[in-house]
Amino acid sequence: MRIINKKIKIETKGAGDLLDITADVADALKGSGLRQGSVTVFVIGSTAAITTFEYEPGMIKDMRDLCEKLVPSGRRYNHDETWNDANGFSHLRAALFGSSLTIPFEESRLSLGTWQQVVLAEFDTRPRRREIVAQIMGE
Amino acid sequence: MRIINKKIKIETKGAGDLLDITADVADALKGSGLRQGSVTVFVIGSTAAITTFEYEPGMIKDMRDLCEKLVPSGRRYNHDETWNDANGFSHLRAALFGSSLTIPFEESRLSLGTWQQVVLAEFDTRPRRREIVAQIMGE
Amino acid sequence: MRIINKKIKIETKGAGDLLDITADVADALKGSGLRQGSVTVFVIGSTAAITTFEYEPGMIKDMRDLCEKLVPSGRRYNHDETWNDANGFSHLRAALFGSSLTIPFEESRLSLGTWQQVVLAEFDTRPRRREIVAQIMGE
Repeated sequence: MRIINKKIKIETKGAGDLLDITADVADALKGSGLRQGSVTVFVIGSTAAITTFEYEPGMIKDMRDLCEKLVPSGRRYNHDETWNDANGFSHLRAALFGSSLTIPFEESRLSLGTWQQVVLAEFDTRPRRREIVAQIMGE
Repeated sequence: MRIINKKIKIETKGAGDLLDITADVADALKGSGLRQGSVTVFVIGSTAAITTFEYEPGMIKDMRDLCEKLVPSGRRYNHDETWNDANGFSHLRAALFGSSLTIPFEESRLSLGTWQQVVLAEFDTRPRRREIVAQIMGE
Repeated sequence: MRIINKKIKIETKGAGDLLDITADVADALKGSGLRQGSVTVFVIGSTAAITTFEYEPGMIKDMRDLCEKLVPSGRRYNHDETWNDANGFSHLRAALFGSSLTIPFEESRLSLGTWQQVVLAEFDTRPRRREIVAQIMGE
């Protein structure tokens, strides 16, 4: 039984940037040499989230539309008054979608569906350099 | 410390089918003989989710209503244009509710509340044969 | 490789009470003496959730507003008819935000961002005594 921590570092373009990190997670797993266990994918920071969906242009637009509908960006939030900034919506979206995801793997392969990609959702208003922990626990 | 992977296979009836899989997860745990650790429940595929709620007919209706309100099924999504199908809403609901859940266990019992069931939420438009990984890690 | 289960017990004030439990989780980790691994934070019960956000008064208000918008409290749900109570909205919010969160740690420190706190979201209509499992798995 071993634990291996990999950092995935990614530059984002700000709000609405949805990035497929499946290959990064799979590479971290491959590098570990482990055969069965699970990978916890955790994004550090409170204005981004980790989720899964079919990563194709139509769905990316739909996700942006859904976020805009559930938590609109074009208004003031109480959080914006606290720091005099404008990313209250970013924090709320992050809290809603969640910062962690745990994916089992068997025979050194992630148990993902064919159309199920691991996605970093950037919700902040400006480009960010993100650090994601891919923690592999297994044997 | 051991890792045991169990596959839970379930036939669903399509969108809005919410299935209580608590007994399946508990059976997998019982079969493992392990006393403490955690079970990661992960649904393979991008049009279903894993969540917890009190599994009773009123709540099941409420969950369907909530999904319909947050992500309506009766309209076209950009994803539908990509494949010329109609399950854009299914993907969005799955991304929102999430595909994984990690439940600790002690003395061979899941640390769930009395009214807290583990639920597979089928969001796809058609009946599916679902595979859920119950990965038990513990001692 | 070891597994340590800590119970965090907290009194809440009912619906809309959002409590920062980061220090409790960090204390559980410190007490374990482990250096790397992950902590699974799981709330027992179906009317509360675990999430992360920047814990400050403006954001707390925003979270309450968002919950009210997505799942309003001032109406009847089918669940309310089942038990003749009024916490249907509590269950729905809990299912949406989720009951578990897994946070990696390295060099005995949780991999959280500076503004990323672990929050217990109480959604029930009355004060509750909550039990949260902080399960530490690591070495």
